[in-house]
Amino acid sequence: MAVEPRLLANAIRALAMDAVQAANSGHPGMPMGMADVATILFTEYLKFDPAEPKWPDRDRFVLSAGHGSMLLYALLYLSGYAQPTIDDIRNFRQLGSPCAGHPENFLLPGVEATTGPLGQGLAMAVGMAIAERHLNAVFGDTLVDHRTWVVAGDGDLMEGVNHEAAGLAGHLGLGRLKVFWDDNRITIDGSTDLSTSEDIAARYAAYGWHVVRCDGHDFDDIRRAIDAALADPRPSLIACRTIIGWGAPNKQGTSATHGAALGADEVAAARKQLVWDAEPFDIPEPILTAWREAGRRSTDAHRGWRERLAGSPQQEEFLRRIEGRLPPDTGIEGWLDRLAEAPQKIATRKASELALDAINPAVPETIGGSADLTGSNNTKSKGQQPFSRDDPSGRYLYYGIREFGMAAAMNGMALHGGVIPYGGTFLIFSDYCRPAIRLSALQQVRVVYVMTHDSIGLGEDGPTHQPVEQLTSLRLIPNLAVYRPADAVETAECWALSLARAEGPSLLALSRQNLPQLRTDRAAANLSARGAYRLRAASATRRVVLIATGSEVQLAVEIAGRLEAQGIGVDVISMPCWSLFDAQDASYREDLLPGDALKVSIEAGATLGWERYIGPRGLAIGLDRFGASGPAEDLFRRFGFTPDAIVPLVVAALKAQGDQ
Amino acid sequence: MAVEPRLLANAIRALAMDAVQAANSGHPGMPMGMADVATILFTEYLKFDPAEPKWPDRDRFVLSAGHGSMLLYALLYLSGYAQPTIDDIRNFRQLGSPCAGHPENFLLPGVEATTGPLGQGLAMAVGMAIAERHLNAVFGDTLVDHRTWVVAGDGDLMEGVNHEAAGLAGHLGLGRLKVFWDDNRITIDGSTDLSTSEDIAARYAAYGWHVVRCDGHDFDDIRRAIDAALADPRPSLIACRTIIGWGAPNKQGTSATHGAALGADEVAAARKQLVWDAEPFDIPEPILTAWREAGRRSTDAHRGWRERLAGSPQQEEFLRRIEGRLPPDTGIEGWLDRLAEAPQKIATRKASELALDAINPAVPETIGGSADLTGSNNTKSKGQQPFSRDDPSGRYLYYGIREFGMAAAMNGMALHGGVIPYGGTFLIFSDYCRPAIRLSALQQVRVVYVMTHDSIGLGEDGPTHQPVEQLTSLRLIPNLAVYRPADAVETAECWALSLARAEGPSLLALSRQNLPQLRTDRAAANLSARGAYRLRAASATRRVVLIATGSEVQLAVEIAGRLEAQGIGVDVISMPCWSLFDAQDASYREDLLPGDALKVSIEAGATLGWERYIGPRGLAIGLDRFGASGPAEDLFRRFGFTPDAIVPLVVAALKAQGDQ
Repeated sequence: MAVEPRLLANAIRALAMDAVQAANSGHPGMPMGMADVATILFTEYLKFDPAEPKWPDRDRFVLSAGHGSMLLYALLYLSGYAQPTIDDIRNFRQLGSPCAGHPENFLLPGVEATTGPLGQGLAMAVGMAIAERHLNAVFGDTLVDHRTWVVAGDGDLMEGVNHEAAGLAGHLGLGRLKVFWDDNRITIDGSTDLSTSEDIAARYAAYGWHVVRCDGHDFDDIRRAIDAALADPRPSLIACRTIIGWGAPNKQGTSATHGAALGADEVAAARKQLVWDAEPFDIPEPILTAWREAGRRSTDAHRGWRERLAGSPQQEEFLRRIEGRLPPDTGIEGWLDRLAEAPQKIATRKASELALDAINPAVPETIGGSADLTGSNNTKSKGQQPFSRDDPSGRYLYYGIREFGMAAAMNGMALHGGVIPYGGTFLIFSDYCRPAIRLSALQQVRVVYVMTHDSIGLGEDGPTHQPVEQLTSLRLIPNLAVYRPADAVETAECWALSLARAEGPSLLALSRQNLPQLRTDRAAANLSARGAYRLRAASATRRVVLIATGSEVQLAVEIAGRLEAQGIGVDVISMPCWSLFDAQDASYREDLLPGDALKVSIEAGATLGWERYIGPRGLAIGLDRFGASGPAEDLFRRFGFTPDAIVPLVVAALKAQGDQ
Repeated sequence: MAVEPRLLANAIRALAMDAVQAANSGHPGMPMGMADVATILFTEYLKFDPAEPKWPDRDRFVLSAGHGSMLLYALLYLSGYAQPTIDDIRNFRQLGSPCAGHPENFLLPGVEATTGPLGQGLAMAVGMAIAERHLNAVFGDTLVDHRTWVVAGDGDLMEGVNHEAAGLAGHLGLGRLKVFWDDNRITIDGSTDLSTSEDIAARYAAYGWHVVRCDGHDFDDIRRAIDAALADPRPSLIACRTIIGWGAPNKQGTSATHGAALGADEVAAARKQLVWDAEPFDIPEPILTAWREAGRRSTDAHRGWRERLAGSPQQEEFLRRIEGRLPPDTGIEGWLDRLAEAPQKIATRKASELALDAINPAVPETIGGSADLTGSNNTKSKGQQPFSRDDPSGRYLYYGIREFGMAAAMNGMALHGGVIPYGGTFLIFSDYCRPAIRLSALQQVRVVYVMTHDSIGLGEDGPTHQPVEQLTSLRLIPNLAVYRPADAVETAECWALSLARAEGPSLLALSRQNLPQLRTDRAAANLSARGAYRLRAASATRRVVLIATGSEVQLAVEIAGRLEAQGIGVDVISMPCWSLFDAQDASYREDLLPGDALKVSIEAGATLGWERYIGPRGLAIGLDRFGASGPAEDLFRRFGFTPDAIVPLVVAALKAQGDQ
């Protein structure tokens, strides 16, 4: 290369400090500290093609320390991606610029993952490496043969999720995963000495990782370390000793460079130190040219790959999976036929398993798993084989007791593409993986959460394990579809909706306890698709509308029967998905929830939020306290989820409304 | 001891298998596997007095693997606690029995922490060990000199939070913390080989822990390991190689014993194997007597401690702190006086810092900290010194980038007693520590969460860092008081309420951006105590009630001014705390939110839930999507949080209601 790497790296430094200075907001320290390492990676090792950012066999690069976003934006610009433009970088952190404060995968094609919530980038990269090995096992080296690279900071390695992710990666032997640790010994509060004393290298070795160290500002040493990592079959931690803010003469090596603009004086001093005379946002021609050349390094490899794809008998199937198109028959319609013929009284978690028995053979891109609750979450379908280091063609992951790590890995798998991940835990432990669920939604990825034991119906395990506020907490997350199906039919319908929902995650809240099948007529349409529908219409004149979800729908049907026997007409609305119902037109919503009826919600969870559907004079039957330990039937009785308890409340509410 | 330890341990095994069998629900494997270790600990090492479970200088014992609750219940019963009785154990996992599925600190005095959500018991124990060292530094060995013991399983050590907790404990050199790892190589899904390959001992050594191994069924070896742990100044991991379900001849060593009753046949076979002839729930007299004697081992130590306390000049202060009684003057009233004299236009995070400047000198039991956002959360008050291994008298913890570990440690500190912990992070990262926040609420402990950057007002960091759904998600947690103060005065009031709330946790959601002080009259009462109050009363005839929280209250005041100028009378309600408002009587609530006015909520977060206050014809101004990266003012404008955007909506809504 004609231009020496230091100059290439200084282009990153200049863009980072200029952009942060212009925004008067951001994090210059990390991009300046890691510029040398990133330069070597992007100009000598990374397989990528800026002309086609979505090339399926590209290496993935994840900036786990997402606050250093300018490192990534600079790399994308310099190496020749169409976006970001230099104007986008000038508008770093301004409304409308794709150069957001933290990298967002939905704004820029070259951003593989949305990062910033620490630890999760690394954990998503584990999922990408899983997807790569799986697809390699299915499609072979000719189509799938790439690596996943990560830059992680001290914060990434302090967050608990890094433990789960690294343990999983070590166990699965994900040797295509290579992680650079930006070992700069600085956090926001100051020196890492303030809060940590651990030997990170020894810890990663304990996970079964290869660990190698280098001086992050010595190019030959960086190359040596990367070569050692590539030669090792294990996942690698490449500890790069760096100086945060390298090049800013008065602030480098201190937390002052971490999260604030350097200031005009220090930027000027850094320019001098770096012998960088160009104007802000201007990259001298020879340097930009060298970068652009480096960006074309993999053009031949890409061409070769395209030729192999064109000649592959698997081309069509490969593209179908990578593009996220479902097969025409997902197996669900046949399963619904069978349910109509032979109704099932089973827990919805079991109904989910039976649905998966139909789906998994028909949809080969699904990869299931559970955070050590396989037999409880019913996530493993008939004949599904484990994914392991010896057999990555397997489609079931034993994630271990790592809910957050599982969810983040699923995000990474979905971001990688070519697979549809689903994974299970108890609904209560949605709290443990909530930060990753939020990132599923923000990143608009197709991930399916299978969350069982969805209420006090869990029983004896008690309040630590009984969801109360979880359902509505999850409904609050934008772009997350939360389903709580009432029976085996709705469970199948909600699975169909989840698989079809390419633009975001879905979450199934499923019962531990058996539930009768409420629909035995084979419906032509997916009734759950509108979020709510009238399951039973009133016989007598309608005065009450009962709205229920999941295991409480059967209860609503029973209560309706009792009220009808008293001559009170009752509709029963099953509402498996609030957000889908909210998206219906006003006439549909009004038809289901008419103004002139007493509306009663029944859900074994928090009542907050139900006012949206029942109005101010409605009746919300729910649970606004923690549960208790005991058999499920006792708990439902204790907390008033019985016809005996609810019928009088409805009658009293009717009377109070002056209707009786 | 006249009775050999195996017989003592078998009493635990018998109770565990009988109770689980009677309930036909529960986890016999862990109590049977760890019975030998627990017997040695309780009969030879643990400092405790069953006659006074709350003796402040007792050793703490935390069963982190809470599913093995029968181990703890058996230990408490056998060693002579008044509770649980044998009938309580007979009713294990039944509604009303204090022997719940998982140990609950609020049901049994001998249960130090509510455990079951894995990893958190260990992380809470770290907090207990911090509190012990701090109080030791303040009150000396004569009053505070005890240990914290933990039993943790493989699940505890796979969860991410164990990484955060162990890293913190190693850094702080918490040598009084001794953790038994039940190394039985079994999880729910089967062998640990399915999901993990790590070298846990090496990992803990990397954190700076002392690690020692023993055969968990060899009593001399157990003693040797404990002695080694006691001799070492570091926190210890005592790896106990055990056989899950030890004593059940056909099922031991397999996951079949983990989470289900053994079955009548296997219980009978185990009785034979253990040579245990007693009837279910019957403990042979010599064995029970030996256990009860062991339970009185520390009676003399306790008497000596009481004598030292009686003679201590610090007695009164020690008891005040341990009993959780605040000093008469918390410093807040004086601070409110000063605010009335010299109003402040500052961010509420800054207002919180200034409140802490007043509180911390007056309330010496507070221990603050932040998860590496000290300067952003404004959690460190003037002159507050760090807690460190060299100086545990310090009252500020640099928790590192460990939000979950911080929250769990705070729970442990509060459970220990004698301190009031508070800690900070960004509100968005409440998601990272949500499982511990839930346990604060369930455990009814006084912990104060200082959560700053509480909306899109965070600005440039973008949607990964901007809370949208977090406020209402947190409001959904039972027994958590969520405060969103509007200015410096409300911030001080909410701090007063948080400190006074001994029965549960509080969470302050605070702004990054400056806010004007809206109240300059010195109120006699704490107006925030009712959850909501009328900040401005309408001048013209009241037709609109604006309800706002936090940074949007100033906006509501401005909008009210514009509407009044058009002759539309507007009340402005500031609502810093929903749950406190919900607890007011109907007349107060009706007075604030009258039926005949258009009610408009303004909060820069999700609208779901606001229907409770604004009714079906109300107007909810909020944000039901993810935010974006940009300067705060641009974001508020973009998302419609300006008078220009809102005033026309209010006018239109009035018109639609036929009022105009």
